[in-house]
Amino acid sequence: MAAARAVAIVRAMSRPIASAETQGAVALPQGFAAGAVHCGLRKDPTHADLALLLADRARPAAAIFTQNRLVGAHVHLCRDHLRRSNGLVRAIVVNARNANCATGEQGIADARAVCGALSQRIGCPPEQVLMASTGPIGAPLPKDKILARLDALLQSASPQGAAAFARAIMTTDTVPKARTATLPCDGGEARATGFAKGAGMIHPDMATMLAFTVADAAPGRADARALELLLRRVADRSFHRVTIDGDTSPNDTWILWAGGRTADAAAFERAVTTVAQDLARLIAADGEGMTRLITVEVRGALDEAEAARVGRTIATSPLVKTAVAGRDPNWGRILSAAGRAGVPFDAERARVWVGPAEVYRHGVPHPEREGEAHRHLVEQREIVLGVDLARGTAAADIWTCDLTKDYVQINADYRS
Amino acid sequence: MAAARAVAIVRAMSRPIASAETQGAVALPQGFAAGAVHCGLRKDPTHADLALLLADRARPAAAIFTQNRLVGAHVHLCRDHLRRSNGLVRAIVVNARNANCATGEQGIADARAVCGALSQRIGCPPEQVLMASTGPIGAPLPKDKILARLDALLQSASPQGAAAFARAIMTTDTVPKARTATLPCDGGEARATGFAKGAGMIHPDMATMLAFTVADAAPGRADARALELLLRRVADRSFHRVTIDGDTSPNDTWILWAGGRTADAAAFERAVTTVAQDLARLIAADGEGMTRLITVEVRGALDEAEAARVGRTIATSPLVKTAVAGRDPNWGRILSAAGRAGVPFDAERARVWVGPAEVYRHGVPHPEREGEAHRHLVEQREIVLGVDLARGTAAADIWTCDLTKDYVQINADYRS
Repeated sequence: MAAARAVAIVRAMSRPIASAETQGAVALPQGFAAGAVHCGLRKDPTHADLALLLADRARPAAAIFTQNRLVGAHVHLCRDHLRRSNGLVRAIVVNARNANCATGEQGIADARAVCGALSQRIGCPPEQVLMASTGPIGAPLPKDKILARLDALLQSASPQGAAAFARAIMTTDTVPKARTATLPCDGGEARATGFAKGAGMIHPDMATMLAFTVADAAPGRADARALELLLRRVADRSFHRVTIDGDTSPNDTWILWAGGRTADAAAFERAVTTVAQDLARLIAADGEGMTRLITVEVRGALDEAEAARVGRTIATSPLVKTAVAGRDPNWGRILSAAGRAGVPFDAERARVWVGPAEVYRHGVPHPEREGEAHRHLVEQREIVLGVDLARGTAAADIWTCDLTKDYVQINADYRS
Repeated sequence: MAAARAVAIVRAMSRPIASAETQGAVALPQGFAAGAVHCGLRKDPTHADLALLLADRARPAAAIFTQNRLVGAHVHLCRDHLRRSNGLVRAIVVNARNANCATGEQGIADARAVCGALSQRIGCPPEQVLMASTGPIGAPLPKDKILARLDALLQSASPQGAAAFARAIMTTDTVPKARTATLPCDGGEARATGFAKGAGMIHPDMATMLAFTVADAAPGRADARALELLLRRVADRSFHRVTIDGDTSPNDTWILWAGGRTADAAAFERAVTTVAQDLARLIAADGEGMTRLITVEVRGALDEAEAARVGRTIATSPLVKTAVAGRDPNWGRILSAAGRAGVPFDAERARVWVGPAEVYRHGVPHPEREGEAHRHLVEQREIVLGVDLARGTAAADIWTCDLTKDYVQINADYRS
């Protein structure tokens, strides 16, 4: 199972899923360091389970969290710390293999103790330290194991630590996920570097989508509030457009942390967006049991939100996703999923395509194009399903993966 | 595959999934006849594919249809006929193996031709004949095959035809689905008899949930409009509470057709509700690849709509459904699914149970109960997952089934 999945992923990775802008080595921006150690949460002593992002001084940060009513302790803690620090952050500590969720007041106190101990060592106010946790829920955070390794964690931090950080935060991810984009700034060139793990609820033990983006430049007047507005705009076009199974986790978190030199606002947003979209596609390409990265293209909507809504409904349809697993260009399932998205459109004017093949147009199927559509599904690792609603000119892309028997196996067999 | 599925279904059927009120033989109400013939839509000549419900005179009917924006031709036709006939219906003809959907104006004309030809033979206005179609979408309706067998279809109709009708409308259903309830009326005892097939989009070729309920008594002033209001109330507590994979079909239809003697309004609604709920549970128990019928119990909601919303979110969660397939009492997935239903509740006050075992209460997991919960999943064919939102006193039950590798296989391998 694991071997078969690894093969599938390697195949998926053999095709480009990153923008040209972010190809190449991942590097931290100036003024940031990263590191990771093993503290005993994972059984495998060679796989780090405690990771750190550290800045040379406090810089502005903003975060968005899961919309789930059940939230992990770190979500409470981060909200509180960002408020009290006016959005200034000096360090982020991340642990794997424990979500610190459904752990009540004790869980929040445990997270606070970790941040407090780290802030003493760094020499900053405790509220300038954030924490993120990912892993199974319902178990108490093994706080003492973490505290015992904080000195080693700080010693591990270096400007070359990006790869170690990306690997330490993985759970069922089969590949570490990190991307760097460059952007012009007043001192020359700045970097925006993003890290991500998992996708919503794809992990059998309810792991989390965690993402962290750091940059050594920001738009001129970018305080934490401005960063937060930008973060929400970018999330709507990146992480909010990836779906594996429609479930969401109590711990989902994305933190954007940037400052230093001055960058053009548009260039900064472009760089952060490119990194986030590439990470989002990497997450979809690493969905459990997946064999195909699917881009759902919705066109002809009245506005982008409506396009995204239709795309999400198609991307979470088990019938669409199993059809792709079976290499079946089943346009009826695509059209029918679009039809239940709550967006009024006229099926007689809509179009549906699978890769290059338009298989349904203006109320009429085109069975003669299905051979070409089938070949697209068989031959490509990144496939396209599209629908034109014929209502307007707005568009959105949503990313997901196919639904295979391996997904069911992975999620049914957990704890057995 | 088919054999394994049949075994699973037989096992599911070995436990009671019907109310005591509807146990026993299925019989048509007085004044109704049913029949079925093979007209060549199915390859198997021993399995009828054209079915008829016929009344001795026009009686009031009401219908509800799919909310999907893509709708089959029969939905257009039924809406038109019910409007023009003031809701009076003399016959309903049903074909299997062709959805007559995405077939444009021609599809509607074909359905109209079938109803017209049947009305001439019966001697009633064409708008008093309704039609329903189920099967693959996008192919033209083989109208001539149907027209050629209308005489034989009428000859097949008899008061003993309930079983033949129920079998003819099946698609991937492994068992015919019909139930009769009795109710007191002015002339003694009346019957409400319901038939159903499939569940939403559980069928690989986009078959439909079709349901038909006939009764030989109705509340005193029950015209078609009164029946429609009752139909919507009952649907909200029966067919709208079953979900297999969250997809819905372009052809979903339920027709309630009743008249004759006078029944007490409350007794009538109770009988129709009992039949509809039993059919809904039969549909969930026949979900593709299923091994467990799941009842999701939501308690402590502010109102019933809110409870149903939370229940539906749990019942469509792939992670919850794969956990049941793996016999894993994974309460975290249940609580997390509830958390993303859009209903604000306090996880610290909520409770979660799996069968008799309360595994989470007031923010604290109870791992010592998980053994009992696991045994419930292993030993019972009808299992219960429950959550108390601690917000109010309203409740709702939702029915679904587990998500297995067989579901993926069935839906991926279609057309291959």
